[in-house]
Amino acid sequence: MNQLHDYINNNKDRFLNELFELLKIPSISADSNYKPQVLQTADHVANALTKAGCENIQILATKGNPVVYADKIIDTNLPTVLVYGHYDVQPADPIELWDTPAFEPTIKKTEIHPEGAIFARGACDDKGQMFMHIKAIEFLIATNQLPCNVKFMIEGEEEVGSPSLAPFIKEHAELFKNDVILISDTGMISNNQPSITTGLRGLSYVEVEVTGPNRDLHSGFYGGAVANPINILSQMIAKLHDENNHITIPGFYDDVYQLSTEERSEMAKAPFEQKDYNKALNIEEEWGEKDYSTLERSTVRPTLDVNGIWGGYIGEGAKTVLPSKAFAKISMRLVPGQDPDKITDLFTDYFKSLAPKSVKVVVKPHHGGKAYRTPLDSIGYQAAYKAYAETFTNKPIPQPSGGSIPIVSLFSEVFKSHTILMGFGLNSDAIHSPNEHYGLFNFYKGIETIPFFYKYFSEIHQQNA
Amino acid sequence: MNQLHDYINNNKDRFLNELFELLKIPSISADSNYKPQVLQTADHVANALTKAGCENIQILATKGNPVVYADKIIDTNLPTVLVYGHYDVQPADPIELWDTPAFEPTIKKTEIHPEGAIFARGACDDKGQMFMHIKAIEFLIATNQLPCNVKFMIEGEEEVGSPSLAPFIKEHAELFKNDVILISDTGMISNNQPSITTGLRGLSYVEVEVTGPNRDLHSGFYGGAVANPINILSQMIAKLHDENNHITIPGFYDDVYQLSTEERSEMAKAPFEQKDYNKALNIEEEWGEKDYSTLERSTVRPTLDVNGIWGGYIGEGAKTVLPSKAFAKISMRLVPGQDPDKITDLFTDYFKSLAPKSVKVVVKPHHGGKAYRTPLDSIGYQAAYKAYAETFTNKPIPQPSGGSIPIVSLFSEVFKSHTILMGFGLNSDAIHSPNEHYGLFNFYKGIETIPFFYKYFSEIHQQNA
Repeated sequence: MNQLHDYINNNKDRFLNELFELLKIPSISADSNYKPQVLQTADHVANALTKAGCENIQILATKGNPVVYADKIIDTNLPTVLVYGHYDVQPADPIELWDTPAFEPTIKKTEIHPEGAIFARGACDDKGQMFMHIKAIEFLIATNQLPCNVKFMIEGEEEVGSPSLAPFIKEHAELFKNDVILISDTGMISNNQPSITTGLRGLSYVEVEVTGPNRDLHSGFYGGAVANPINILSQMIAKLHDENNHITIPGFYDDVYQLSTEERSEMAKAPFEQKDYNKALNIEEEWGEKDYSTLERSTVRPTLDVNGIWGGYIGEGAKTVLPSKAFAKISMRLVPGQDPDKITDLFTDYFKSLAPKSVKVVVKPHHGGKAYRTPLDSIGYQAAYKAYAETFTNKPIPQPSGGSIPIVSLFSEVFKSHTILMGFGLNSDAIHSPNEHYGLFNFYKGIETIPFFYKYFSEIHQQNA
Repeated sequence: MNQLHDYINNNKDRFLNELFELLKIPSISADSNYKPQVLQTADHVANALTKAGCENIQILATKGNPVVYADKIIDTNLPTVLVYGHYDVQPADPIELWDTPAFEPTIKKTEIHPEGAIFARGACDDKGQMFMHIKAIEFLIATNQLPCNVKFMIEGEEEVGSPSLAPFIKEHAELFKNDVILISDTGMISNNQPSITTGLRGLSYVEVEVTGPNRDLHSGFYGGAVANPINILSQMIAKLHDENNHITIPGFYDDVYQLSTEERSEMAKAPFEQKDYNKALNIEEEWGEKDYSTLERSTVRPTLDVNGIWGGYIGEGAKTVLPSKAFAKISMRLVPGQDPDKITDLFTDYFKSLAPKSVKVVVKPHHGGKAYRTPLDSIGYQAAYKAYAETFTNKPIPQPSGGSIPIVSLFSEVFKSHTILMGFGLNSDAIHSPNEHYGLFNFYKGIETIPFFYKYFSEIHQQNA
């Protein structure tokens, strides 16, 4: 690859400044108060793609936040790479736990990032990683080395489960037609040991509401005689796991892909120290489904977590209220075989069955998505493997992730192409948490590695043609 | 009693306007942001007592909000009535459920109050009821009919458990010395059937914090492998009751006063319709400890309620967080025999024992107080009985309440005098809830009835001397 290192070195500061401008806009898709900033960010991304040399820039309307489209078609006989990313970010709550403001990007050194890391909401997930692709394409176009066609699909609702994207891509299937989908929205094992994410968990996300009496009551006059929706909700949540931390929803495990003994022993070889893991989280003991390892629990086994709970008086001091309502947000991570709609139905039926007659229960599905696996023998996986091997000292290893990108399984259905998850983040990046950050090493290494994916993908594609 | 009806009729509107001014000040003791309004309310009460003809007005400092003192000593050889009340109010949350603003008092007619009721936070609890006493004393002084001495103790921390009052009354025991304590901070059965509250439940109120990992985590990467503090807190709360809704804390029931069969059958005679109760609350079924009636559950049996719970993401939309912490506010209503400090210790030990090693638990006691019973053969009870009998069509009946006024049991220890709970509120007044209100009938009937308490208390006291 000609001029790659020179190009990156000569533009290092500009790349960073441009990313900072992107990170400063609080494009929080979960909170409708930030809608103007979300739209502003879509414009910003469109401008960045124009500056990179892309063509046919479009900000396409969806039922929700818009999708930014751009392409560079050099020859319709050559294969097309579709780059998917998202410009929306998670809320910054709890903001009081950020050491520097979430939307004022700051460079700080850490033990893992001695050369510095960018601290900001979205630094890794996904503005920083998505922006590497724009800069990699800028390099390939500027130096006349783009070996195939490229299209961009940068959306604004990933952090709320991409609710508008499914109908959108079906409608625009021709525009986004591709031979492989490339996404950097995941991580790797360490800066010395790259890895390629070969699996994502699916998701079912619901919000539940338990109503007791028709109004908030004085707990002195009614306590003990009227069902308290917080106590009842707690009891219902408690019943969702048994004493071995298996999920108790009838039928929940029916379609779960069970790993073979061989697959399990292959997984067990991945570098992992429970002691270090516990120390990093300051927990005395891990937790989870009996008879499975931490790595299995967090990647290939389905789970159920309460992501939020609220009810009654949560202000300062004491209020003796027996509240009318209590709420929880509950998500289930799914594995290959499980259908999110079926799981949501199973949850709903079971959860309602746990309620005593003294309360009413509403279950509102938020969003869902199927799990996904990348075939290791696909051209895309092989190209990614060679790209990492070119720029890192160690060869990459395949690794399933416990996270979800709900739209990925739909991509494979609509486009009949594979998705390659070339993530450059680290587990310690604190995405979705206060003090999210992304290493400068990782940012520049991504820009360096991505061009090789295009090179090898085009080469192997031609060999197989 | 001379001129009583004329005096009330001639001053009806002024009484109401004066109460409205008091209700307009948001004296919320649970929220330190309202400290200036709390102090303003103490001044307001002091002025009202001055205008009523009281003397020696003092705003006495405590470790928290001040206590307003006033007296009218006509003869040190005569007995002294101590009027206790509170000028602080509960928070107005959830404010969106109020039909008219909580601190803009409004008169509206209801089915139970065809002549109108005052809608405002504190209308009944306790500004409206406390103010009746100031107006009754104004009448007695203005018409030269006060038959004994009177002292006022109007405090500003009742709604947060009177944390400063215990040391305060011990320090000022001589100043507040009395022969009987009179409080209107409770209710009666109905406007046709007066009742005198003869019992209060005690209270133990705690806040619990469950900590899992040291920071909020992404539930995709860690879910299923790290204990989620919300799931764990829910499980711990669920274990506080068994399948019969008995409280499971070891030793919790050890000192509970068990009602005799006779007492239980006496209680069962009180007018009560489960169907009407459920309909008023829009619940399909009541709930509570097995083998006890709704009336017993809500008055003479100890209970445990979660008054507030929070953790994780509680904003709009979906966030897939595995939070670091989850919290709950939990209160236990206690009955005669139970010691709040002992119960708080029992709770703390048991609650901590329910936690798996994967989390850390902190239990912070908020406040507590013992249960109380008024002896039916005391002079104060007899005087109150005769006063109600004088102004209502039906004679009053004794009734235990499920609520708590934590300071009452301490009063009997410090002053060696009985507390008489002459409440004029109704269960339907929605105290501690949105749309709290207090009937105009009840307000004026209180002002009419209270002077007779002074009359009969002085008479019976002299007969017994």
